[in-house]
Amino acid sequence: MQDPIEILTEYFRSLPGVGKKTAQRYAFYIIENSREKAVNFAKAIVDVKDKVKLCKECGNYTSSEVCSICQTRNKKVICVVQEPKDIIAMEKIKSFDGVYHVLFGCIKPLENKGPNDIKIKELLDRVNKNDVQEVIMATNPDVEGEATAMYIAKLLKPLGVKVTRLAQGITIGSDIEFVDEVTLEKALRSRQEI
Amino acid sequence: MQDPIEILTEYFRSLPGVGKKTAQRYAFYIIENSREKAVNFAKAIVDVKDKVKLCKECGNYTSSEVCSICQTRNKKVICVVQEPKDIIAMEKIKSFDGVYHVLFGCIKPLENKGPNDIKIKELLDRVNKNDVQEVIMATNPDVEGEATAMYIAKLLKPLGVKVTRLAQGITIGSDIEFVDEVTLEKALRSRQEI
Repeated sequence: MQDPIEILTEYFRSLPGVGKKTAQRYAFYIIENSREKAVNFAKAIVDVKDKVKLCKECGNYTSSEVCSICQTRNKKVICVVQEPKDIIAMEKIKSFDGVYHVLFGCIKPLENKGPNDIKIKELLDRVNKNDVQEVIMATNPDVEGEATAMYIAKLLKPLGVKVTRLAQGITIGSDIEFVDEVTLEKALRSRQEI
Repeated sequence: MQDPIEILTEYFRSLPGVGKKTAQRYAFYIIENSREKAVNFAKAIVDVKDKVKLCKECGNYTSSEVCSICQTRNKKVICVVQEPKDIIAMEKIKSFDGVYHVLFGCIKPLENKGPNDIKIKELLDRVNKNDVQEVIMATNPDVEGEATAMYIAKLLKPLGVKVTRLAQGITIGSDIEFVDEVTLEKALRSRQEI
């Protein structure tokens, strides 16, 4: 029989960014706390698998049919993201009052992931159905995210909807000296009058 | 009802050194993996609480009556540590073939934690019973760990056992320029002929 501490350490180690030492600390934390807490922790882990599903409108994680964002917010503006976790980042800014659309990835020709492998069709359906005014592309600012945004923009424009993209430039609080040249060039090209 | 993702995030957040963002990453990792993995992870958490107990000889965590170290190693040399996790650190060096003794803390007068609140009596019993030749004090190199080591050494010496302390000095790979003055002074005082 394998040692229970080792087994738990291995599970903690499988979490993103967790090394052996950190996993051990986590395991010891569980040992040193109450059994009740361990049981509730364990229950919470199984619960997310059992109760969390995808919002049938936007694809965000939710424990109801339609997520709380889709239930309450302005459906005329859709922000398109690659993954549900991107929604958490966007929600932190607190000033966006539209809804989201999760693509679940982006177009990756090298991995044979084409437009039909992500939720583009569902986005077009939503735009057609809900009289959407603006679609904000918030895919990642890398080659693949960029290409995906361009591809989707091309499909949306004929529908008469305004398509925008998150601005790219130097990050707030950064130091010009250390900004990479690609970002700096983009920031120069997109410079704005003050 | 509270959101299952939030509940799980809170549990992950209670782990040592985990902030909100990291906890969220962990929760999403669980969501994105199989239900089977989640169930096994949950089981592993409850299992450590149910199966792991303290070795009745040394106090180390074990799933049997007596830990594997106590079962196989030289009982004439005892290394005294504050916590079970210190044993893991010691075991990494792989050259110690003695056994351990866990104090479960150290003497902390400011917190009203006296000699009777840690496993000193049990250590004396072991030394008396097992014809121990050497006790190595591996308590933390801070004021309280130091005082605890001195206190225990005083109790052990009359029993005719050799008591030693882990050497203190500059750490391997460090830079003299950045070594704190207390350590440097200790290293100077304990300098050894080469």
